[in-house]
Amino acid sequence: MNYRMILFIIGQIMKAEGAFMALPIIVGLIYGESHVWVSFGIPMVCQLAASFALTLKKPKNNAVFSSEGFVSVALAWIIVSLTGALPFVLSGEIPNFADAFFETVSGFTTTGATILPDVEALSRSCLFWRSFTHWIGGMGILVFALAVMSSNDSRTMHMMRAECAGPKVGRLVSKSSFSARILYGIYISMTALEVILLLLGGMPLFDSLVHSFASAGTGGFSIYADSIGHYDSVYIEMVVAVFIILFGVNFNLYYYLIIKKFAQVYKNEELRVYLGVILTATVLIAVNIFNIYDSVGSSLRYSFFMVASTITSTGFATADFTLWPEFSQTIILALMFIGSCAGSTGGGMKISRWIILVKTGLKELKYVLNPRAVVSVKMDGKPVEQDVIRGVTSYSILFVLIFVISMLLVSLDRYSIEETFSGVATCINNVGYGVGRLGPAGSFGGMNNFSTVILSIDMLIGRLEIYPLLMIFTIRRK
Amino acid sequence: MNYRMILFIIGQIMKAEGAFMALPIIVGLIYGESHVWVSFGIPMVCQLAASFALTLKKPKNNAVFSSEGFVSVALAWIIVSLTGALPFVLSGEIPNFADAFFETVSGFTTTGATILPDVEALSRSCLFWRSFTHWIGGMGILVFALAVMSSNDSRTMHMMRAECAGPKVGRLVSKSSFSARILYGIYISMTALEVILLLLGGMPLFDSLVHSFASAGTGGFSIYADSIGHYDSVYIEMVVAVFIILFGVNFNLYYYLIIKKFAQVYKNEELRVYLGVILTATVLIAVNIFNIYDSVGSSLRYSFFMVASTITSTGFATADFTLWPEFSQTIILALMFIGSCAGSTGGGMKISRWIILVKTGLKELKYVLNPRAVVSVKMDGKPVEQDVIRGVTSYSILFVLIFVISMLLVSLDRYSIEETFSGVATCINNVGYGVGRLGPAGSFGGMNNFSTVILSIDMLIGRLEIYPLLMIFTIRRK
Repeated sequence: MNYRMILFIIGQIMKAEGAFMALPIIVGLIYGESHVWVSFGIPMVCQLAASFALTLKKPKNNAVFSSEGFVSVALAWIIVSLTGALPFVLSGEIPNFADAFFETVSGFTTTGATILPDVEALSRSCLFWRSFTHWIGGMGILVFALAVMSSNDSRTMHMMRAECAGPKVGRLVSKSSFSARILYGIYISMTALEVILLLLGGMPLFDSLVHSFASAGTGGFSIYADSIGHYDSVYIEMVVAVFIILFGVNFNLYYYLIIKKFAQVYKNEELRVYLGVILTATVLIAVNIFNIYDSVGSSLRYSFFMVASTITSTGFATADFTLWPEFSQTIILALMFIGSCAGSTGGGMKISRWIILVKTGLKELKYVLNPRAVVSVKMDGKPVEQDVIRGVTSYSILFVLIFVISMLLVSLDRYSIEETFSGVATCINNVGYGVGRLGPAGSFGGMNNFSTVILSIDMLIGRLEIYPLLMIFTIRRK
Repeated sequence: MNYRMILFIIGQIMKAEGAFMALPIIVGLIYGESHVWVSFGIPMVCQLAASFALTLKKPKNNAVFSSEGFVSVALAWIIVSLTGALPFVLSGEIPNFADAFFETVSGFTTTGATILPDVEALSRSCLFWRSFTHWIGGMGILVFALAVMSSNDSRTMHMMRAECAGPKVGRLVSKSSFSARILYGIYISMTALEVILLLLGGMPLFDSLVHSFASAGTGGFSIYADSIGHYDSVYIEMVVAVFIILFGVNFNLYYYLIIKKFAQVYKNEELRVYLGVILTATVLIAVNIFNIYDSVGSSLRYSFFMVASTITSTGFATADFTLWPEFSQTIILALMFIGSCAGSTGGGMKISRWIILVKTGLKELKYVLNPRAVVSVKMDGKPVEQDVIRGVTSYSILFVLIFVISMLLVSLDRYSIEETFSGVATCINNVGYGVGRLGPAGSFGGMNNFSTVILSIDMLIGRLEIYPLLMIFTIRRK
């Protein structure tokens, strides 16, 4: 393991995070919040200093293999979360460090679960930083740093593989730092477009910015206790819902649109299933909640928003779905696990994994029916390689094991079984709300420190798709 | 598909079930219950008549391939459940046919979930029949019928494969009808031994018989509302707990004991894991519930019994575990899915499947860590074939899909999410109790007909391990 190189990479990340902290300082100064000099200034200076020390000398051996890639990514995410939590503690707005860590991990992993019983009491600078972590985390802080700062492609590729979501990372173009820049271009443009559309809907600039950051990362932090429901505007709800659905699509498809390969997008199986699941779930829930809202329009409005918010793992709310019938709640819980498309900013198990899993299951069924039949698992018309199927099934097994262990540990906190289940589900799938006391109207604030740490680890495991995080436990043994 | 042969097999099964109904008639006559002439007599005569018609002419073509095997098994189980439900309806003790069907499926599949709010109100003949279905279902009514009646080995083998639980059926000896007879010999001897030991503990003969039937099948029907807890006897609890654990062991191991291959038993990995899980869960729960019982002995006593009852999928109770802390409840729920050993009468996913799944997951982890390392999944010291791994992972995928679909359908019944989850879990894993209103102190009696039918299908799917039951939906299409 090339430890020198790992430290060098960590140094670059700290430089990036330190620089990003300039933004909440500016916000704080605009709103006259003098605490920013301490709460953001100190962490900023410390990080830049540490970064300077770590990156002073470029390591001679700059080889990065997949193990170094995984370990750097895991350590980087833990370190940015630890340092990113400092402003909340230093400002005194989240005095308990475990809580502040949970909130920051929830931000960077684009989960959006909060320990704050009253989010509206936060200062503007902290609110801005909280939502900005979503935006940074959405595309991966590491890939960003490397895309901008580095020219070593094989290194970036290993990082992207570790940090990007889904069964496989498609190389868009031959140079991976160039790929990363294209993806960031799309990401920034779409965020800007959402800000403009929200402004046109009458949303204040600050609100438009933070909600667009949270949409882009499919994070879900809002600045109001009742989230997007606060504005009670169909226009705003539809803009947000459509954008989070768009951010839940594989970004490669946008690249195909840019280079006019429309057929690639049109025939994309994952996209079709994604939109099909959204449509089906919206209709089923709308029928189920019709009695509550007494109008087809309202039922569809709330159903569509909550389905979009859940499947994309965003976690914005316009309705307290925990008051809906159990059937709708069960669909919402199922959507958490389904998740969005691979290669998007969304979480969950990812649609493409489910496609492969379901087809693998059905293939076996056909095989048992007729052992002489030759059946293969196909996706987008092409047979899926055996290695990919094996990777997806093994991933799912590890996912279930981690889920069960987490649930056992969190169940010690004496929340009800369904609350515990939903809490672990929402964290490991990076959604943001659960049921019961963890529902959209509640918070994770009542949990003890042990649970918040376990759930923070679950959020990181979910965002980094298991392997990087498990890998750091094995460093010593190699 | 050889339909004539399938009908012939169904005819043989009906003959067996008709004959078995003589036993509750005898019990009814002993206890002076005159309704048995109608409630058991009519179904008995009808079945024997139908059986006579179906088996009058032996089909010329008596080939049975795996598709015929699967379809016969699935149809046979549905038919015995339909006809087995008649006595409950005809006696007027369970007037709703859907409820009676649920109760009978629960019996044959050795689940032990009941729709009866007051089981003690049942007549002796019905109580006996109810428990006897456990005993018949435990080893598979079809294998029994064929072992006794048939000499065609390839045919029996296909049945056994469809009806027996676990990743693969081990052929004990070259002739499968002979294998079946050995297994039945062990099954009958162990049941008899448990009856004797319970009698020695002061349990009345009738009680000893029905509870031994329910133990042997790892079913769980009792004749008292408070189940085994009714006797409040440590001796009886320990006899029952030890016997259900023994019935949850792969029966092949008993055969090895008989032929003195002790090393095969000692080295058996599934057995070691099974006992290890029981030990671990017992200790964890005992620590967790210590505050409730205030004594190490009592905590261990209740913990051990409930762990044994759950992991073997029996469903007897000595304590209402829904009053225990959430940690203990979560362990109990997890044990339902773990299940007992393959080739036993127990349900659940089976220990050997979990061993293969966990090792497959860990193998991938090692592979991701170090792609050059050659890792293989081993069990009992031998590498597991790729086909078996594929079969186990595909089985698990289908299991999860069926679980989620069932949960969505049953959630329409407006039970809480955790009740619905536990209800589906307990039925598909053939355990017997859930949490909340479906806990040991409750019943499935409050559910609507739609839910009871879905849960009945889940019990059959769980007992027959998915494929046979899904296969009957495809008969027409072939």
